[in-house]
Amino acid sequence: MPAVVEHSVTTEVPGPMSKASAKKLDTFFDARAVYFVVDYDKSSGNYIVDVDGNKYLDVSLILPDSYSQIASIPVGYNNPALIEAAKSPEMISALVNRPAIGNFPSAFWHDLLQDGLMKAAPEGLNHIFTAQSGSEANELAYKAAFMLYRRRERGEAEWSNEEIQSCLHNTTPGSPELAILSFKNSFHGRGFGSLSTTRSKAVHKLDIPSFNWPQAPFPALKYPLEKHTAENDAEEKRCLEEVERLIKNWHCPVAAIIVEPIQSEGGDNHASPAFFQGLRDITKKHSVVMIVDEVQTGFGATGKFWGHAHWNLTSPPDIVTFSKKAQTAGYYFGDRMLVPDKAYRQFNTWMGDAARVIVCKAVIDEIRNKKLVEQTARVGDALYSEMEKLAQKYPDHVQNLRGKGQGTYIAFDTQSAAAVTSSMKRLGVNIGACGKETIRLRPMLIFEEAHIPILISAFEKTFSSL
Amino acid sequence: MPAVVEHSVTTEVPGPMSKASAKKLDTFFDARAVYFVVDYDKSSGNYIVDVDGNKYLDVSLILPDSYSQIASIPVGYNNPALIEAAKSPEMISALVNRPAIGNFPSAFWHDLLQDGLMKAAPEGLNHIFTAQSGSEANELAYKAAFMLYRRRERGEAEWSNEEIQSCLHNTTPGSPELAILSFKNSFHGRGFGSLSTTRSKAVHKLDIPSFNWPQAPFPALKYPLEKHTAENDAEEKRCLEEVERLIKNWHCPVAAIIVEPIQSEGGDNHASPAFFQGLRDITKKHSVVMIVDEVQTGFGATGKFWGHAHWNLTSPPDIVTFSKKAQTAGYYFGDRMLVPDKAYRQFNTWMGDAARVIVCKAVIDEIRNKKLVEQTARVGDALYSEMEKLAQKYPDHVQNLRGKGQGTYIAFDTQSAAAVTSSMKRLGVNIGACGKETIRLRPMLIFEEAHIPILISAFEKTFSSL
Repeated sequence: MPAVVEHSVTTEVPGPMSKASAKKLDTFFDARAVYFVVDYDKSSGNYIVDVDGNKYLDVSLILPDSYSQIASIPVGYNNPALIEAAKSPEMISALVNRPAIGNFPSAFWHDLLQDGLMKAAPEGLNHIFTAQSGSEANELAYKAAFMLYRRRERGEAEWSNEEIQSCLHNTTPGSPELAILSFKNSFHGRGFGSLSTTRSKAVHKLDIPSFNWPQAPFPALKYPLEKHTAENDAEEKRCLEEVERLIKNWHCPVAAIIVEPIQSEGGDNHASPAFFQGLRDITKKHSVVMIVDEVQTGFGATGKFWGHAHWNLTSPPDIVTFSKKAQTAGYYFGDRMLVPDKAYRQFNTWMGDAARVIVCKAVIDEIRNKKLVEQTARVGDALYSEMEKLAQKYPDHVQNLRGKGQGTYIAFDTQSAAAVTSSMKRLGVNIGACGKETIRLRPMLIFEEAHIPILISAFEKTFSSL
Repeated sequence: MPAVVEHSVTTEVPGPMSKASAKKLDTFFDARAVYFVVDYDKSSGNYIVDVDGNKYLDVSLILPDSYSQIASIPVGYNNPALIEAAKSPEMISALVNRPAIGNFPSAFWHDLLQDGLMKAAPEGLNHIFTAQSGSEANELAYKAAFMLYRRRERGEAEWSNEEIQSCLHNTTPGSPELAILSFKNSFHGRGFGSLSTTRSKAVHKLDIPSFNWPQAPFPALKYPLEKHTAENDAEEKRCLEEVERLIKNWHCPVAAIIVEPIQSEGGDNHASPAFFQGLRDITKKHSVVMIVDEVQTGFGATGKFWGHAHWNLTSPPDIVTFSKKAQTAGYYFGDRMLVPDKAYRQFNTWMGDAARVIVCKAVIDEIRNKKLVEQTARVGDALYSEMEKLAQKYPDHVQNLRGKGQGTYIAFDTQSAAAVTSSMKRLGVNIGACGKETIRLRPMLIFEEAHIPILISAFEKTFSSL
């Protein structure tokens, strides 16, 4: 086991150098959300170092949701395997000869996908569409669902002239009224389509026109789960009934639903496997595409490679989207009918970025070679046990502890998230809050047993001083 | 002057190796739009080499719009200056420690922008927002315009509780009805917002729900321009009047208009500087944000760094978006009111990609060091003269020649674009068509006088054989 580097914070946070650097940046680039300015050369593994020389254990999130680069650093800063991939001839070529992959792929593109992203494909989903962000991946999934819906309606008929003409004017029938159903408190991105399904916070949505799409309630479970079985079952049943009611009664057809395995930005809200099986049953019954948004849960943090693998669904989701830890983005799917009837309907100039897909392959290799999913499951269980002890000792500060058996995807509510995060940062732990008063842990996949006491000790000091 | 490598095509196009390779890819990645499979290691400068060993002068476009990687390769395949940037320590770090730039920039990020993208900033626009695609850049510009519109309406008032609650339900007043005006035949991307402003072809838009936003006519000029002055002036006046009428009478407020300096995907449609000055006057008069989409025209191809620099506007556009040749994407703006009132409203996880911004800086340096904009203006003038001669000799095949004084951004209409492109490809010129029967030339910025005879000779052979 590698030695655990000690964290150390010697200035206020952010320090004077960070403040000065952010101020300079702000002259031409909005820097109001800058938490601190980073020295990436000195950052390593689980530790992030700022330009003031402060070193933090990077395990959680800054308001509103920035931890480990908003949960997007999978295998540690300056990971040697990633550095090797970054120096490879394939990377140089991908960087300087950026291909329009849809028209002019290299022969290497096939092998890269086959040996990388396809090795990580969720069970039953054997096609891929590459993209550049989680938001774009979700929108591409919506477009696939809309085209499938209309393809089924249209049958074998060719596009009508009326459809072709009307779509250029953004009117029906070419631009149909169709909807995507999402859940209260969900986060699915910030494009005009994805933002129409995001329901977490006004700061993302205010003043932006959106589609009139339905929002279903997401189960509000009570903790500890074992003490509220009947209530929680009833709550999930209520939510499922509302999903089905909305699908049946919405003013226009619902082509797809999108759901996160764990609502992350919305405050780490969980639901049971039975709830998700219920969603799968409803979507099958009504021929609605089921999209699972694994932008934050994918790539191992829940102790399985994909969060939805915890559900043991009777049939796989139709589409699974990914980004963040994957270092690139896109979606997996199984049904070839989700490939549109004609080329160029689901298309764009770059179709993702081969350079980022190369990094992604290195991440997948590293996860598999080092058995990091298994490690995350094991370390997560140990960490959860320690958090349970803290919850007993500081019941006012650790409420609704959740994420048992979900790797290191652990969260709790607290009285003042701001006070906790501020204290933790002074103690050298890069941590933050989400939802209203929620602390979410998001260590990288290389977080080890040895890091647990550091984290727990910082919590102890914080809670005893509040 | 470097030696001009001879092109050579020895198989049908695409060749057997390309076909086999694309077929293999298609098992898990939609490969129907693959034109040929490329050997990027063997491609160099203006020449692209496929896996069958065919070598093409890469100057134009494959249907529907793929040439030089859909106009996204600026300074040639395997450009040594870009290779150097790709091997730099800063690149390695950007690749392996992908920063969430909005929260945790490195100190290097400021310098990279200052010495790169900001050196290329259009006159009067001294702020930047980085993104990953032209489509995303345009959507971010729309969001900025919508937030500005509501900010002006709201004045100093705080967000109301009704606004905060209603936006989470996608209803007014929090999700207001506001519009972006775009032009007939325009192309602005494929996201749900950007696609609502795209008006070029049904293949992009059919079956996808869109916003009820207005479309104005774009001038349909007659060529040669000098013979149709009065008609063209009247046509531009008509279009400007329609823009103003739509802004005044649309069912909801128009927050911004978006326009391409040359409508590219729509068929290389030009308008005069007076037309664009007219747009600037109308947008100023009605406090509508003017967005210039330079995704395809930016970075030198028109013989100026920015296409809108040809207009000599009395005041700069409010927002200029870019992508493609920039190898990254984003938008420039001048008015600090376009920065939203609060942080995190215009935000996302990665906020672009520092790795691609490093490549972009190398592109800008190369353009400046080698005076490639000046070269493109000069070579474009010479190429246009040769094309004029062809137009006189083959009036049936070269109609409505356009792009005079616009660098190498030259296009013409023809009777059968498919026949021309097919013949040209056999003759070793990677060329294609757009619009209905339009051939667009899109050489890279490193296209030289020495390449002109090769291109003209292939056209000669093609036209004389049709």
